[in-house]
Amino acid sequence: MNFELKKYLKDKKAKIEEFIKSYFQTFPTPPILHDSVLYSLTAGGKRLRPILCIASYEACDGMENIVPYATAIEFIHTYSLIHDDLPAMDNDDLRRGKPTNHKVFGEGIAILAGDGLLTEAFTILSNKDYANISSNTLLKVISEISKAAGLRGMVAGQAYDLISEGKEPDERVVEFIHLYKTAAMIKASVKVGAILAEASEEKIKNLEIYGQSIGLAFQIVDDILDIEGTTEAMGKPKGSDIEKGKMTYPRVFGIEKSKQKAKELIDKALESLTMFNHKAEPLREIAHYIIKRTS
Amino acid sequence: MNFELKKYLKDKKAKIEEFIKSYFQTFPTPPILHDSVLYSLTAGGKRLRPILCIASYEACDGMENIVPYATAIEFIHTYSLIHDDLPAMDNDDLRRGKPTNHKVFGEGIAILAGDGLLTEAFTILSNKDYANISSNTLLKVISEISKAAGLRGMVAGQAYDLISEGKEPDERVVEFIHLYKTAAMIKASVKVGAILAEASEEKIKNLEIYGQSIGLAFQIVDDILDIEGTTEAMGKPKGSDIEKGKMTYPRVFGIEKSKQKAKELIDKALESLTMFNHKAEPLREIAHYIIKRTS
Repeated sequence: MNFELKKYLKDKKAKIEEFIKSYFQTFPTPPILHDSVLYSLTAGGKRLRPILCIASYEACDGMENIVPYATAIEFIHTYSLIHDDLPAMDNDDLRRGKPTNHKVFGEGIAILAGDGLLTEAFTILSNKDYANISSNTLLKVISEISKAAGLRGMVAGQAYDLISEGKEPDERVVEFIHLYKTAAMIKASVKVGAILAEASEEKIKNLEIYGQSIGLAFQIVDDILDIEGTTEAMGKPKGSDIEKGKMTYPRVFGIEKSKQKAKELIDKALESLTMFNHKAEPLREIAHYIIKRTS
Repeated sequence: MNFELKKYLKDKKAKIEEFIKSYFQTFPTPPILHDSVLYSLTAGGKRLRPILCIASYEACDGMENIVPYATAIEFIHTYSLIHDDLPAMDNDDLRRGKPTNHKVFGEGIAILAGDGLLTEAFTILSNKDYANISSNTLLKVISEISKAAGLRGMVAGQAYDLISEGKEPDERVVEFIHLYKTAAMIKASVKVGAILAEASEEKIKNLEIYGQSIGLAFQIVDDILDIEGTTEAMGKPKGSDIEKGKMTYPRVFGIEKSKQKAKELIDKALESLTMFNHKAEPLREIAHYIIKRTS
């Protein structure tokens, strides 16, 4: 096996960031919104969701350049972080080692920047000029992403996350939060890659299992890092979940059982890739990386 | 001419509200989000934007039932009101005579309800099952609406509205705010009706002029009502624009010139409908109604 994940992630990240830069070069919006949106879009994210989308597309033999569509998912992820950090939500001052959007631009502009990024994602997804993808397929992608991001997906998870602060540990609640707040969009990122490649139903189904499993594992690892990670590596204060009384996996199941669960999920994700050939190697390596990450 | 606007508006409003009710009957979202979203969606709006969309579609000889797609525009309008009322934005306690969303459900849930409504609009617009409309046409509709609602449309207008509070009167700024904050989505509502009907380029162009003109007139009348209207009819405190130092049309041009401008815009809107037959009668009557309204 000669696949090097580090180089793969770096290459894809560069393409995504190049698209973001060119997209906003001559973009007709007020300067303050332009600055606010770009501030958060270029704050040094891992670009995990769009990379997963591209990796899944390539695993399904897709041959077009789908970077713009994948980057639309990063727009949605970034909007969710901006709104999540607001005083009325998690009230965080730091994100990836930098002041959060509302700390720099004020709450009103931060709300609007989030709204604008979410909306702009659909402008990108409805643009046929980026690649040779059928209108029907793009509609399916929009449906998938909007469901995963909205009232029956990420937004539902955020609502439960918010109203569960300080409540007694509850297995069903923490599982609901993880499934919707985090796993829904990670699963959709992977699935959308397969939809764009017009993959078979069977492949799509297996990639859904992969996406949901690594998505859940990702959030469990996040919860564990809040306890065992370093503030330096994470770019935000350690222990902030505990301070806010967040309903986390370690709080409900304990840290050892949480680690065990994350490992089981990664095994399940890898198993779901059995029917795929060497083109799914990035997806396999990303699954390993998710459990080993420190930030 | 036997066309009765009152009955027309009532009939269309009933269809839109029926769709809203059925849509959320068995909708999989947390109860608090469900309640928050429905609270604002059923707070007694005029449904002007979806009605304009349907009226435009019918003026262009459309024969399908496009109520679901038109209602998606109302979802976006409602999200914009929820976010606009937030303390970090206009900080309003009343809307249509009822406490604003965040006053009832809290700021966090209000932000999420707005996010969810915006996202759900695209779930509806990407659903092919509602009518016999081609995928390509639906993609065009999504592109049009997302541009009008986002960073180069309504969100841009909101940002300027926000940062212009308390500033010196400025003709260019107030025109920018009106054009983007209000007219962009009204114009898009009308244009989308024509796109759904696959109307000719010429018809679409004329309907764009109509939509932009009535959209600007609508906001000018809104500004005038803040001074001359009654708190009772409007369901919100009179004079609140002045109190907040908002950049309004009367503040920049004076009240008489504002009324004159609104009248000119309505004349322009009516003129743009010359090429349309009796099927455009609702659009003509709505133009007259916009300048005569008291709430």
